[in-house]
Amino acid sequence: MNVVDVAVPGARYPIRIAPGRLDCLDEAIPADATAIGLVTNPTVASLYAERAERALARTGRKVVRIELPDGEEHKDWRTLNQIFDALLSNGFDRRSVLVALGGGVIGDMTGFAAAVYMRGIRFVQVPTTLLAQVDSSVGGKTGVNHPLGKNMVGAFHQPVAVEIDTDVLATLPAREVSAGLAEVIKYGMILDAGFWAWCEEHATSLRALDRRVLGHAIQVSCELKAKVVAQDERESGLRAILNLGHTFGHAIESGLGYGAWLHGEAVGCGMVQAAELSAEVAGFPVADVARVRKLVEAIGCPTTAPDLGAERWMALMRVDKKAEGGEIRFVLTPRIGQAITRAAPEDAVRRVLARTVG
Amino acid sequence: MNVVDVAVPGARYPIRIAPGRLDCLDEAIPADATAIGLVTNPTVASLYAERAERALARTGRKVVRIELPDGEEHKDWRTLNQIFDALLSNGFDRRSVLVALGGGVIGDMTGFAAAVYMRGIRFVQVPTTLLAQVDSSVGGKTGVNHPLGKNMVGAFHQPVAVEIDTDVLATLPAREVSAGLAEVIKYGMILDAGFWAWCEEHATSLRALDRRVLGHAIQVSCELKAKVVAQDERESGLRAILNLGHTFGHAIESGLGYGAWLHGEAVGCGMVQAAELSAEVAGFPVADVARVRKLVEAIGCPTTAPDLGAERWMALMRVDKKAEGGEIRFVLTPRIGQAITRAAPEDAVRRVLARTVG
Repeated sequence: MNVVDVAVPGARYPIRIAPGRLDCLDEAIPADATAIGLVTNPTVASLYAERAERALARTGRKVVRIELPDGEEHKDWRTLNQIFDALLSNGFDRRSVLVALGGGVIGDMTGFAAAVYMRGIRFVQVPTTLLAQVDSSVGGKTGVNHPLGKNMVGAFHQPVAVEIDTDVLATLPAREVSAGLAEVIKYGMILDAGFWAWCEEHATSLRALDRRVLGHAIQVSCELKAKVVAQDERESGLRAILNLGHTFGHAIESGLGYGAWLHGEAVGCGMVQAAELSAEVAGFPVADVARVRKLVEAIGCPTTAPDLGAERWMALMRVDKKAEGGEIRFVLTPRIGQAITRAAPEDAVRRVLARTVG
Repeated sequence: MNVVDVAVPGARYPIRIAPGRLDCLDEAIPADATAIGLVTNPTVASLYAERAERALARTGRKVVRIELPDGEEHKDWRTLNQIFDALLSNGFDRRSVLVALGGGVIGDMTGFAAAVYMRGIRFVQVPTTLLAQVDSSVGGKTGVNHPLGKNMVGAFHQPVAVEIDTDVLATLPAREVSAGLAEVIKYGMILDAGFWAWCEEHATSLRALDRRVLGHAIQVSCELKAKVVAQDERESGLRAILNLGHTFGHAIESGLGYGAWLHGEAVGCGMVQAAELSAEVAGFPVADVARVRKLVEAIGCPTTAPDLGAERWMALMRVDKKAEGGEIRFVLTPRIGQAITRAAPEDAVRRVLARTVG
């Protein structure tokens, strides 16, 4: 078993990575827990909920299953309230624990419910998509969407443990594998040129879910993310670089309606756009733009952005959480393995849109 | 001007107490604020919003007024979303600041909106009721109600400043003055027998809003609360004693429907019930139960609890946030000026209900 430690001010927790972790979830539950809420969706539940419940039942605590509707379009207040209804009607107190069994949507909503239920209870992340395993389950960002913007309402709330069962990826649809790989290669692009080159070399094995190769990719991704989060939990500086491709990506998701594209697909395409913008304003080599496009393609993500109309694109990017005083801020990369955050001139952004929108 | 300092891990802020603070609100806004949202309700707005806006305008920042419907029955998700709608449609970013101008409901909702908007922005408390000035605006508890329980969804989020203008109490209805005084005498009952005796002596002047007497009561209350919060921000122990009378009180509010009784009225009555229960199980002198009833009456709060039916009373108290593993926990007082938290036997609770319900 591989263990990656995450440490932020006031919290420290392990990410445990191994095949079969699903059958050991009781190990993640604190000894003084009074009850356990297993939050999941029907798709994941049909595959894994019973195994998870069997493991959790070994704690001797009451385990209540809370099934939420599947999909990013349900990541809102209404669905969140389903969790509160279930917790309150089952008498869950401040020492109860939630377990998020699912992808990023389940993890973000469960984490946010834990952050605000009775002003904060504990929770465990059990990510079942590649994207959630390498990104959203680590670092304590939680939240729900608002009709005017993604993740606009949320909290920083760290889990007490992250349990990554690499076996569950076998049932993941190919599109979700590609979406998860977008976040994997992102770590290389912003932090580690060597890992980027390794991803270029292993793109085919990664898509084919080669167990050894994928296990390495997950571990390196978690390590790189943990390092960033340890330095800047609240995204007052460094952590923002993890949003490479996200300003464009969020506009795609929001503009097409949440759920049309997977988050990772939007980020993959957004990385190509960020590379183009970096070439415009941050000295990123034009030849490397082609490398980025090629790897995003190789992992199976779209590289042509949807035509939302230039004005709509600009308006959607202006509500991004990184925006400050009306300026749109982007994560840019001067070269592969490095990242900076800064505002970009509007005309450069418009040129990139003209080149990347299909 | 009197200033009380509040210090918790990671946050430190002043409570400024003086007549006329409303005209100096610009002093509370951090220099790097990008925009200001003034959250209030129509009742308070008609009296004070323009003065507040004039002061805030001196910062040179955009000031957006957000008026929420008045009353505890609107302290819910739906109303909270009105704040998010206003912030997002006005382009409020992570460096914007909210100002809560109103009573406890406005303060709790504004604070919670600030806690979760873009995962946390800053806010200033400008409490306009006595209850909010001596209690809810200090200490960072924020939240909204759920149909199954009061303040069940919320966060700990400290303001950057609390501005208490003692002049605004002149327009406060007598019922709200009494409700606020319930929290004032509560501090004496749990922490300071001398202050309790002083309240007994000055009950008439307090109700009459004698400026000098009331100013002293506000300052002592803030000092006592700040001291408790500094030791235990997250209510893992000591802070729970501030909830004297609240387990009974929350049941009254929830059982009658939020808004029927004022929060302070429910707490006042709940203190009489807590005194009775303390006499049953914590050695509280029976003679002092009469003292408590007399002072609660003297400040103008009800001392007879509403008849919700014994089973409903028990069920409502079981969903209290202090409940753990199904046991109802109460704040009890062995003698005036001291408090403890503990579970009480159900038969003792039922005897108290039989004696105190009208």
